[in-house]
Amino acid sequence: MSNTVHDYLTSGPTFAEGEVIARIEAFRKRRPRLRDTIVTLAHGAGGKSSAALVDAVFIEAFRNPVLDARGDGGIVTLPGGERMAFSTDSFVVQPLRFPGGSIGHLAVHGTVNDLAMSGAIPSWISAAFVLEEGFPIDELKEIVADMAAAAAAADVQIVTGDTKVVPRGAADGVFITTAGVGVIPAGRRLSADAVREGDRLILSGPMGDHGMAVMLARGDLAIEADIRSDTAAVSGQVESLLAAAPSTRWLRDPTRGGVGTVCNELAQATGLGVVLDEERLPVRPMVNGACEMLGIDPLYVANEGRFLAVVAPEETDAALDALLADAAGEEAAIIGTIVAEPAATVVLRTGFGGTRIVDMLVGDPLPRIC
Amino acid sequence: MSNTVHDYLTSGPTFAEGEVIARIEAFRKRRPRLRDTIVTLAHGAGGKSSAALVDAVFIEAFRNPVLDARGDGGIVTLPGGERMAFSTDSFVVQPLRFPGGSIGHLAVHGTVNDLAMSGAIPSWISAAFVLEEGFPIDELKEIVADMAAAAAAADVQIVTGDTKVVPRGAADGVFITTAGVGVIPAGRRLSADAVREGDRLILSGPMGDHGMAVMLARGDLAIEADIRSDTAAVSGQVESLLAAAPSTRWLRDPTRGGVGTVCNELAQATGLGVVLDEERLPVRPMVNGACEMLGIDPLYVANEGRFLAVVAPEETDAALDALLADAAGEEAAIIGTIVAEPAATVVLRTGFGGTRIVDMLVGDPLPRIC
Repeated sequence: MSNTVHDYLTSGPTFAEGEVIARIEAFRKRRPRLRDTIVTLAHGAGGKSSAALVDAVFIEAFRNPVLDARGDGGIVTLPGGERMAFSTDSFVVQPLRFPGGSIGHLAVHGTVNDLAMSGAIPSWISAAFVLEEGFPIDELKEIVADMAAAAAAADVQIVTGDTKVVPRGAADGVFITTAGVGVIPAGRRLSADAVREGDRLILSGPMGDHGMAVMLARGDLAIEADIRSDTAAVSGQVESLLAAAPSTRWLRDPTRGGVGTVCNELAQATGLGVVLDEERLPVRPMVNGACEMLGIDPLYVANEGRFLAVVAPEETDAALDALLADAAGEEAAIIGTIVAEPAATVVLRTGFGGTRIVDMLVGDPLPRIC
Repeated sequence: MSNTVHDYLTSGPTFAEGEVIARIEAFRKRRPRLRDTIVTLAHGAGGKSSAALVDAVFIEAFRNPVLDARGDGGIVTLPGGERMAFSTDSFVVQPLRFPGGSIGHLAVHGTVNDLAMSGAIPSWISAAFVLEEGFPIDELKEIVADMAAAAAAADVQIVTGDTKVVPRGAADGVFITTAGVGVIPAGRRLSADAVREGDRLILSGPMGDHGMAVMLARGDLAIEADIRSDTAAVSGQVESLLAAAPSTRWLRDPTRGGVGTVCNELAQATGLGVVLDEERLPVRPMVNGACEMLGIDPLYVANEGRFLAVVAPEETDAALDALLADAAGEEAAIIGTIVAEPAATVVLRTGFGGTRIVDMLVGDPLPRIC
């Protein structure tokens, strides 16, 4: 298989060749840049605006060798030489409870999965709560019980926490921020730098279940569908995959911004291209139908129990088999390939044999999804 | 010096002896217990209601050997045998900027200090932001610059972060949650279990500057006073103290709930009594005056750059000298003594030679102070 811009971008009817090349050049120059003077919902959506805000405000100010602009956490080296992953996420999902989970499950799974994406064994979690005055204690207890259950299932301990209360109207019920740490086993190196042309991209399960479950749970859409969030800890699946495919290059969980945005982050970080095969992208029919009704591309819908893995060509089958062996990964699929050209770009090869560029998420079609 | 209930509680005119004993017995039985059905501001104040909420909701659900109900963080043991402190705090202070600092300074100092209280060398910090739609980017940049400056001054790196945005009205400007980790040097053990009768209690500087600075900065009190927050990293002072007084038993920063509440936590954790000497409690005249006008006891006002140390009797002078040697600690003072009786109770020996019981903070006289 040859992996060049010509093969993938001129084989279909979507654009003429010259137009395609021009669009790619324009895209390459279109690094996200912060132009806003106030914070908008798009800055929290995990797409292009989020990247621009992070670059302009946080990376610029906090610049240090460990800070990871695009990753799921920082990796620090302990005095004894061990490498440790450290990650944090705030959770502001609305509603607090949805088919398949709650903010409590998300708060644990989100941080456990970020640690697993660094190759770490997730071990210890902190939990900080900002509560709105008047929030029912019983509801808080249920959320906390979900966190405890999620932590037990993921084999992590919640070892420290904090509680703040703000007056009515100064927050919306409850926000939870978790942080987590875990040691990375010796010799394990996952990095975008290790990704090579010809590597394959695996997605561990169907796209978009979480985002659509939360969206429908809000009840302001006239859509009834049996869609459950995929929220889950993926650390067990990651260990199975790494045992079967020890040359695995890079892992990432496609939460906010979805698979489309994370593939763009991969393309930007590596300078390589990512070609996605539309027909191989796993999406449940219910989710696909809901997305079509809402005019949302499932490539941009958040997942909370899936991950993307870039694996070595020769280990691709072993990696896939390792995921398929387990119920959680029974819909895992090889969804794409790493190519040299178009550089730093994601393209989707459509079912009709055409291609289109997949940009990062723009705007925020699904606010407060996690 | 003899340290018994009789010496300290019957030497003054405040109560008759029988009354004192009866009050102590009642106090001992008055463990905080959660009776509320909704969250109130008092649950976030760091006093009795906070303790009740933490006990009933979080400790109960997350119970594990590492989880520390009363401490400033969890201490975990890494695979290589090193002990590491892990701590988190959310910051919801209003206003965001006040004389002496901002929410950005607090967010770094708060977590750095919690780590230092465990005896750890604070090293790495995470920062998660919940932003309200419409928040000015320039104001965010200033806060982030304060965090960067505070981190540099405290010699810690901000290595990972997260940003969420909620719609207008769903939060109040910005909430920041930091977590931090740091390794505890081998052989260093700080614990309430090590505290003994006859140990002395040192406070590293004047009480209440932070709480009063924030309170006055709100501007709805008709008090004008030049009071600046004491927000600062105390990790350097802690290292000086531990070098001079290596048998130091226990450290704690009296943030929410103030010195009075933290002394009660010490008394409850050790089962011993704490006798505070009113005349030795350092309070700036301006702060004292503002407290008197507001009817607030400085013992319950939050500090963000002070710590309490329980030191061995024979190392007390060395410990105090180590603090006094530095400008930050020039008002450090020996404020009390650990006694066997009254057990699990804090008493204040007043300037008139009388005594009164110092309870934990009840209610929330100063909401959103950190």
